Amino acid sequence: MRIIGIDPGTGILGFGIIEIHHRQLQLVDGGVIRTPVKQDDAIRLTTIYEELTDIIAQTHPLAMSVEKLFFAQNVTTAMTVAQARGVVLLCGQQAGLTIHEYTPLQIKQALTGYGRAEKKQMQEMVRAVLKLKTIPKPDDCADALAAAITYAMTTSY
Amino acid sequence: MRIIGIDPGTGILGFGIIEIHHRQLQLVDGGVIRTPVKQDDAIRLTTIYEELTDIIAQTHPLAMSVEKLFFAQNVTTAMTVAQARGVVLLCGQQAGLTIHEYTPLQIKQALTGYGRAEKKQMQEMVRAVLKLKTIPKPDDCADALAAAITYAMTTSY
Repeated sequence: MRIIGIDPGTGILGFGIIEIHHRQLQLVDGGVIRTPVKQDDAIRLTTIYEELTDIIAQTHPLAMSVEKLFFAQNVTTAMTVAQARGVVLLCGQQAGLTIHEYTPLQIKQALTGYGRAEKKQMQEMVRAVLKLKTIPKPDDCADALAAAITYAMTTSY
Repeated sequence: MRIIGIDPGTGILGFGIIEIHHRQLQLVDGGVIRTPVKQDDAIRLTTIYEELTDIIAQTHPLAMSVEKLFFAQNVTTAMTVAQARGVVLLCGQQAGLTIHEYTPLQIKQALTGYGRAEKKQMQEMVRAVLKLKTIPKPDDCADALAAAITYAMTTSY
């Protein structure tokens, strides 16, 4: 069972793919899709659509786990993140993935048992669960892996 | 020169296509894409993507005019509208359209010369400009046509 986690964003969108094997979680792949700030939203969203569709086609996940929008103070940023999130959900649906959405609170609780865990604690848990030597970089990739791990930890399969 | 206007939304997305011919604006087509409230966002966004892609392919607009998000009091609604908007921009970009975005204020000013025009006044202007006998229904379709007319009135071509 393979899961792709996504941390949605327009400037930088994190993704992380994990495999569940005999109740152990393993890192398959992870990274970010970056789009230039100066480009129009429509072009940036198209880049995200094309790259994410490619990543899914190459890594064959069966499920997608997406962080639900944390409502930021900056409304404009929240709106552009939501636009990217719409494209992410479209990619997942078109690829036939089972899609689950989790709030930041749910992700923190699944990984640390504590809804107000610090970012650093979360990243350390991602590293430990996947038995990595170092914390995955950048943060967006670690956040995406946290979403994928949440799916693995909260779903029976 | 043909323009498609869009009033983004998940439950109901309005579209309206107009043709500019010898400085006159004519209605080509208009309507709405509806998706069931009970469906998951990912399925609803996929329906919007597929139907809007079909509409563009059948009506051949060269430009797309999309209403910029009016920030609603209901944050959850605003977020789902933004997700649909991301899919709309993707459709326009993939079809190679020139995309313009206008705030509700800009649309009101273009149609009535007054940024605080009432909804009814706006709809009456859409009817008059397109020389229709009655106001296009539902409201989402009239709003989409208003966006398309704004593009026609504010762009030199």
